[in-house]
Amino acid sequence: MAKIEPMTTGRIQSLTDAVYAIAMTILILNLKVPNVPIQPLALRRALLMMGPKFSNFIISFLLLAVFWSVHHRHFRFIKRADSKLLWINIGALIFVVLIPFSTSLYGDYGRLTLAALFFEANIMALGVMKYVHWAYATGGHRLVDKELEERDIAIGRRLNLVTPGVSLLAMALAFIAPDWSTIVYLAVPLIITTLRQRP
Amino acid sequence: MAKIEPMTTGRIQSLTDAVYAIAMTILILNLKVPNVPIQPLALRRALLMMGPKFSNFIISFLLLAVFWSVHHRHFRFIKRADSKLLWINIGALIFVVLIPFSTSLYGDYGRLTLAALFFEANIMALGVMKYVHWAYATGGHRLVDKELEERDIAIGRRLNLVTPGVSLLAMALAFIAPDWSTIVYLAVPLIITTLRQRP
Amino acid sequence: MAKIEPMTTGRIQSLTDAVYAIAMTILILNLKVPNVPIQPLALRRALLMMGPKFSNFIISFLLLAVFWSVHHRHFRFIKRADSKLLWINIGALIFVVLIPFSTSLYGDYGRLTLAALFFEANIMALGVMKYVHWAYATGGHRLVDKELEERDIAIGRRLNLVTPGVSLLAMALAFIAPDWSTIVYLAVPLIITTLRQRP
Amino acid sequence: MAKIEPMTTGRIQSLTDAVYAIAMTILILNLKVPNVPIQPLALRRALLMMGPKFSNFIISFLLLAVFWSVHHRHFRFIKRADSKLLWINIGALIFVVLIPFSTSLYGDYGRLTLAALFFEANIMALGVMKYVHWAYATGGHRLVDKELEERDIAIGRRLNLVTPGVSLLAMALAFIAPDWSTIVYLAVPLIITTLRQRP
Repeated sequence: MAKIEPMTTGRIQSLTDAVYAIAMTILILNLKVPNVPIQPLALRRALLMMGPKFSNFIISFLLLAVFWSVHHRHFRFIKRADSKLLWINIGALIFVVLIPFSTSLYGDYGRLTLAALFFEANIMALGVMKYVHWAYATGGHRLVDKELEERDIAIGRRLNLVTPGVSLLAMALAFIAPDWSTIVYLAVPLIITTLRQRP
Repeated sequence: MAKIEPMTTGRIQSLTDAVYAIAMTILILNLKVPNVPIQPLALRRALLMMGPKFSNFIISFLLLAVFWSVHHRHFRFIKRADSKLLWINIGALIFVVLIPFSTSLYGDYGRLTLAALFFEANIMALGVMKYVHWAYATGGHRLVDKELEERDIAIGRRLNLVTPGVSLLAMALAFIAPDWSTIVYLAVPLIITTLRQRP
Repeated sequence: MAKIEPMTTGRIQSLTDAVYAIAMTILILNLKVPNVPIQPLALRRALLMMGPKFSNFIISFLLLAVFWSVHHRHFRFIKRADSKLLWINIGALIFVVLIPFSTSLYGDYGRLTLAALFFEANIMALGVMKYVHWAYATGGHRLVDKELEERDIAIGRRLNLVTPGVSLLAMALAFIAPDWSTIVYLAVPLIITTLRQRP
Repeated sequence: MAKIEPMTTGRIQSLTDAVYAIAMTILILNLKVPNVPIQPLALRRALLMMGPKFSNFIISFLLLAVFWSVHHRHFRFIKRADSKLLWINIGALIFVVLIPFSTSLYGDYGRLTLAALFFEANIMALGVMKYVHWAYATGGHRLVDKELEERDIAIGRRLNLVTPGVSLLAMALAFIAPDWSTIVYLAVPLIITTLRQRP
């Protein structure tokens, strides 16, 4: 085609925002209301037993929020889009959409290493896609401002390695204590905040 | 990082709008079509028995709409965003997403104080997050126009105390009549409208 | 509060668009994949028996699309928003969100007058809310351009009476042939198109 | 009505983006967490048996992404909207919303030709609607820039024939090996990319 208007980033962002919002919200569909006799003690016990499911819900929700904010951050620098960037985005969205499933699987089979690994591999794959996204957009300043400094690009790259790195740790822990292994993800926001503020 | 463009409020708003919209819509998934013989009387009785679930649905829907309009209102004054505001927002969204679960729990176990307290604590936590959101954004005019008057900030703060206050009342009622305790939330829109119009 | 910026219509539109989109999409959750032996004849029969559910799905989808396009049209004329308009909108959205439930109820109990009336009352209530929405916004040119002609306002009002009118007809039919009574809604797009083109 | 502002394409795009995003995300609801004893081997076997469902999920997700990007592309050229374009869009959205159902049907009955044909007919119908969408908008340069060259219009038309064409192939294969017939859709992105780059 002779002349195409440059692809704008606006609609990629709106699709992505919507998919993240829906994935974050349907996580709640994994929390089934318990089915017990209508008695205070029975309900209290049932809710307490849902404890791990609540914490899984919160961890997945926060991880999705972290990834969304990474995406948000990328697009403050990315000025143009092209077909490859679009498909890297779509690839990342597949792993976003898988998270409610992985969370639910881990919620039901948290004592099994396999379920923990499945969840953590999902998070890792999403993290890797985000790394690729940033590396592609910034490589040779392909889709970002020419003025963006190499140093900022490197910081962005390092930030994108946090979740894959933590996922490796979680996967190692999954062989020892699968049902506790995802707790390390709570460190992600802290690490990211620290890295960002480094001079 | 040397120089970052200021975070815009646009995408926070679009994520938030989407999460609210989805939470408001999936409330309907709690209303299960009854499973009775195909007879007029059986269906009528089944629908009448769903009465409390319909009113729970409407109360939750309206509360979400109130919170959304509060959010909407905040962002008419908030001109910039920063990382903390983003995470206060995410924190609030967790409690938004929990509402369909709490509503469903209260729908099934409305006669138990525990279920009523769970729902009301959820609403209260969301209200408190909104209060924090406003207090953080306006403290020292951090993220709002310098021209915003102290008096307007104080009114905003007071408006944000309405739902937590009503929640306390509801929680007290939950010890007496759990299945009726949420009815007091219907006063929220009235109180807010009155407070807004005060000279 | 001393001075408030006028409420913009943008975020009301984005919440509304999202709620319509979700309601239109979760209609599909009512179409359950049949649970029959894996045999061609069994599956064919099961799909054929789902015929009425498919047509209910399409009617509800089209009605939601009609209402969405009415909303779309209103906001081409409405230039400002106020608190009442917001709450009329929220009121309409409750009936939007109810539609997947009503559709499912009608799908399961289509042979009962009560189920047909429930669905049709839902559609009617939404239509009435849209009428109120238009009447409020245009009354005394409250929220529309001063230049909008009385004649155009009247046409808008008449367009908003189409669905309530057809709903009355459908409700009358529901006493004779409940499972066919919603078929008259297929006339809605035709009537609207005709009315619009009238000189 | 005497004078109507031209319909803008913005809200059609936002409704469409939202419906696509929701349809893409609720595909995951078809992946049910297996219900097996909490044993490593049982879970592994159950996940492996879900293999075809995972690949169906990915194919449907990618097809929806392809169609979304086609839509995206159309609206880079379409400058105005009219009532017919709106309804062609709504017609396309019905088939978008059907995809989670068709995917689930194909997932459960993949060995039956009928289920494969259902899925493929759904994809084909969506492709045909997109073709009609482009043909209508560009016919006589109805809704596009006058400067858009005939050659570009023809390329757009050809791109829109790819999915219907591949669907025909898939439907032929469905009579031989229904459970493998959808694999040919993986060629769609490749064909589209190749066609686009042709001089």
